[in-house]
Amino acid sequence: MQKHPHFRSQFIKSCVSRFRTEHSSESAKSSMGIPLADAIEQSKRLAAYQAVDNHVLPEHKVIGIGSGSTVPYVVERIIAQGKEVNKGRVFIPTGFQSKQLIVDGGLTLGDVDQYPTIDVTIDGADEVDHALNCVKGGGACHLREKVLAEAAITFVLVADHRKNVQYLGTNFAQGVPIEVVPFAYAKVLQNLHHALGSPKATLRMAVKKAGPVVSDNGNFIIDAPFGREHMNDPYTIMARIKMLTGVVEVGLFCKMARAAYFGNADGSVTIRWNDGKVETINAEQVSEKSN
Amino acid sequence: MQKHPHFRSQFIKSCVSRFRTEHSSESAKSSMGIPLADAIEQSKRLAAYQAVDNHVLPEHKVIGIGSGSTVPYVVERIIAQGKEVNKGRVFIPTGFQSKQLIVDGGLTLGDVDQYPTIDVTIDGADEVDHALNCVKGGGACHLREKVLAEAAITFVLVADHRKNVQYLGTNFAQGVPIEVVPFAYAKVLQNLHHALGSPKATLRMAVKKAGPVVSDNGNFIIDAPFGREHMNDPYTIMARIKMLTGVVEVGLFCKMARAAYFGNADGSVTIRWNDGKVETINAEQVSEKSN
Amino acid sequence: MQKHPHFRSQFIKSCVSRFRTEHSSESAKSSMGIPLADAIEQSKRLAAYQAVDNHVLPEHKVIGIGSGSTVPYVVERIIAQGKEVNKGRVFIPTGFQSKQLIVDGGLTLGDVDQYPTIDVTIDGADEVDHALNCVKGGGACHLREKVLAEAAITFVLVADHRKNVQYLGTNFAQGVPIEVVPFAYAKVLQNLHHALGSPKATLRMAVKKAGPVVSDNGNFIIDAPFGREHMNDPYTIMARIKMLTGVVEVGLFCKMARAAYFGNADGSVTIRWNDGKVETINAEQVSEKSN
Amino acid sequence: MQKHPHFRSQFIKSCVSRFRTEHSSESAKSSMGIPLADAIEQSKRLAAYQAVDNHVLPEHKVIGIGSGSTVPYVVERIIAQGKEVNKGRVFIPTGFQSKQLIVDGGLTLGDVDQYPTIDVTIDGADEVDHALNCVKGGGACHLREKVLAEAAITFVLVADHRKNVQYLGTNFAQGVPIEVVPFAYAKVLQNLHHALGSPKATLRMAVKKAGPVVSDNGNFIIDAPFGREHMNDPYTIMARIKMLTGVVEVGLFCKMARAAYFGNADGSVTIRWNDGKVETINAEQVSEKSN
Repeated sequence: MQKHPHFRSQFIKSCVSRFRTEHSSESAKSSMGIPLADAIEQSKRLAAYQAVDNHVLPEHKVIGIGSGSTVPYVVERIIAQGKEVNKGRVFIPTGFQSKQLIVDGGLTLGDVDQYPTIDVTIDGADEVDHALNCVKGGGACHLREKVLAEAAITFVLVADHRKNVQYLGTNFAQGVPIEVVPFAYAKVLQNLHHALGSPKATLRMAVKKAGPVVSDNGNFIIDAPFGREHMNDPYTIMARIKMLTGVVEVGLFCKMARAAYFGNADGSVTIRWNDGKVETINAEQVSEKSN
Repeated sequence: MQKHPHFRSQFIKSCVSRFRTEHSSESAKSSMGIPLADAIEQSKRLAAYQAVDNHVLPEHKVIGIGSGSTVPYVVERIIAQGKEVNKGRVFIPTGFQSKQLIVDGGLTLGDVDQYPTIDVTIDGADEVDHALNCVKGGGACHLREKVLAEAAITFVLVADHRKNVQYLGTNFAQGVPIEVVPFAYAKVLQNLHHALGSPKATLRMAVKKAGPVVSDNGNFIIDAPFGREHMNDPYTIMARIKMLTGVVEVGLFCKMARAAYFGNADGSVTIRWNDGKVETINAEQVSEKSN
Repeated sequence: MQKHPHFRSQFIKSCVSRFRTEHSSESAKSSMGIPLADAIEQSKRLAAYQAVDNHVLPEHKVIGIGSGSTVPYVVERIIAQGKEVNKGRVFIPTGFQSKQLIVDGGLTLGDVDQYPTIDVTIDGADEVDHALNCVKGGGACHLREKVLAEAAITFVLVADHRKNVQYLGTNFAQGVPIEVVPFAYAKVLQNLHHALGSPKATLRMAVKKAGPVVSDNGNFIIDAPFGREHMNDPYTIMARIKMLTGVVEVGLFCKMARAAYFGNADGSVTIRWNDGKVETINAEQVSEKSN
Repeated sequence: MQKHPHFRSQFIKSCVSRFRTEHSSESAKSSMGIPLADAIEQSKRLAAYQAVDNHVLPEHKVIGIGSGSTVPYVVERIIAQGKEVNKGRVFIPTGFQSKQLIVDGGLTLGDVDQYPTIDVTIDGADEVDHALNCVKGGGACHLREKVLAEAAITFVLVADHRKNVQYLGTNFAQGVPIEVVPFAYAKVLQNLHHALGSPKATLRMAVKKAGPVVSDNGNFIIDAPFGREHMNDPYTIMARIKMLTGVVEVGLFCKMARAAYFGNADGSVTIRWNDGKVETINAEQVSEKSN
């Protein structure tokens, strides 16, 4: 049984280098005396561990695995639950990269067309607001991610603290990613510019090919920035965009997540629940629970 | 300048034979003394002519051309407006077949990604209710058709009298066509069966290939029959379906058409307007206007 | 762990009814005194059993499963090898329908992008010539089927006796299926008509959608009949077609199969090997080996 | 008739800025005393003008327009042939960007599925060898580009002098772009690594989306570097790659071009013909002919 070893190492290197790039400016030290980048990485690991401990229970058999720099730790923690519990499980990836994580972890791959109900999906986000609404789609995978979120009985977010904001659009300024069918992009841009209040919406252009980015589903991506007046109520603008003919999916996930786990810069973890409750756990507490 | 002559004759033959099949059981004679099939065909031609005369004006430069057995007469009538008026026009097809009609008619082809605003789109329908809501998608082209309908300042329907019903689902019993991304079809079927009230929704299987029908956009088609309680208010069920993640477009076109032109079995034409007004014109009246 | 039960029963019914249709005219009795349709079905089962017994060995861990009316018996026989041996195996489907067979059989699904080397692939064919060249693509799945055939260390065919011919094109007259990218279809048709000697090559039109059949990969299918002068040497014409720009894959599989197993009308099985050897086994012999 | 003005200005800006980036290091002056970047730009314009003057004749009615930084000058020169001659012409783009050039130039857009025979196609290249073989596909458009090259009675290349090399792979080191169907990429990589002599072939990863680049046709791109021993005879390696199942098209265009026009750093133009003849024309000569 021969896997494809070439890709694996390429993939891991790309994960690592992406992380280095993201954090390249953070060479300071955290209050804990360890380098800040490492502290954040530690806290992301703790956030992921805590999320798995709370939500991926032995009785869960169909599990959705998302993407983002915190997700590798999710898979790490699931593998640590042991071969016995994972033997009867099927793991459904949101995209090309989580597929690699699942296969490389020796877990069984499944697809959502075979398992339309998922016990729990854990995914990252580009930004999460105070009410657990989030923006996703920086990687143009939000259609598949949203199907796995909607198919899940429990949907949980994991991310680093920079994604934890009061209102969407605070740090992630490039706009809401919108997947559109190619021949409708100009009409949808016109709708966004003139009727929906995003005059700066643009088609996302590719770097490694000529012309626009093409999604894994063969569609184009529009990035549509919206002001605070819309981001106060992301559900309403999401529904208005989704109703446009030619729109396949909107990268706003509203009222979907049960909880969000954020790794903080000081090594602690903040947990926000969909009932408004907020917890902060420090590294020692998580470690204790983990052992 | 070499066109592709092979396809053209193949296409025209297929249009004609499709018509013969549809009407094969109608060998009786109409009240006008001409064979009934010819009478219907005559009335479809008159309906198309009347629609063009009323809505495709000389100042209209971007024109959407749909599909269906009445549309060839639409193109015929537009060509009859003369080379001068058509020289500066661009025609945007809803699919493979209307593309052939445009090219074979010597008209200039355009696409909706270049012309996101269309002056007038004329299209057929699988069924039209009393309020000009319609079902489309028997041919799995409703995504592109809806983009051209929504992009149009004026959207007009042409069809034969069998499509003219009080409530959608009266004659077209196979259900509302829903275009879905392939990996989401099982989740969407589950949503339709359990949450949206269409327990008999099924994936449309192909005849000339193995597995499901694949649309021109690479997606699957679900046919979802709904009862009268939903078809009383097609907009609401359309919006609920469209909001499902994985749904690309729903074959219900609500509150979009300005008028619908039906060719009747007796050779007359019924026109229904979006303000509720209904007119019936007989062949002589149309002919007069046409001359 | 919830599968999608709706589809399963629909699929099995469709398999059965398709078989009934194919054999509807065969109401005579075989020499064995059992109804002929049942005799053929028996011999297809025996052919499949024999193929599995000879080629799917316990040490084979990655197994490709094709399509066709004989393949369900292949899966039946593999399942009969026992849970222990199948536990460590991954099964890779050639399409939508074999995916169902694998999942319904409780086997583990994999994909060829994870397992680019397959131990053995067993598939059906539309026709197989004396040198084990075959035509595939009646179901428009030949691209994926050929990837699984080429990735396989051993590729084996199973079919009923009507597919067993001296020269390709004897019974399967619709022509060689050719998958082409949509925008290149007219150029490729022109090449086939004028340069490659298939003046009757046509675009395959769909029944359940408007316009051409779209394959699972989003492409069109051309059916190109060739005369005996080309079918004497299928490799050469295959290579010439594949070299055409715009052609994705040709439904001629040349010099790929190690053996072909045919279920005969009299209940026996004919095995043809790629070294020219031909064996015939009767039902008793197979049954013995099977027990 | 409303075009989409937003995109146009965005596109022109992007063309200009891309040019600036490419040439940012060339701040020296040419022998003609004008800044070197401008000199190159001048020579590219002259190369394009010369190519149009030689190959786009009044009787040519179907014209393919490619991409690359020299092609805007091709369109400029064609427009300068006058409204009268362009009125009866149809222009077929190789991709998203040449489509914009055609529409912005007020020319009539056509598609190759309507016009499978093209009078002349002018396109850029990533590199051109001494025998007019070229590498294309840096922009992942080489499938469509090759269809337009193959459909053309005359195929002509225009580029700047850095693309003018003795052997392919001299400057363009990233490898031969190969378009593959997504599920076959791992098998094709394996074939390239082990059988075809490109051990460093890799899947092209995207920057503005997660995972691999997806082409406009929904496929993946592999970049496969080959050594001199293969690049001595590009046709042979091209044919071997194209024959691999799962390969849609190879970015090697062999024995296709009638001539290549290169803008040199000193403002002159080098023309290489497919019969081996080489001409060099200086700016004054081109200007004369142009007036």
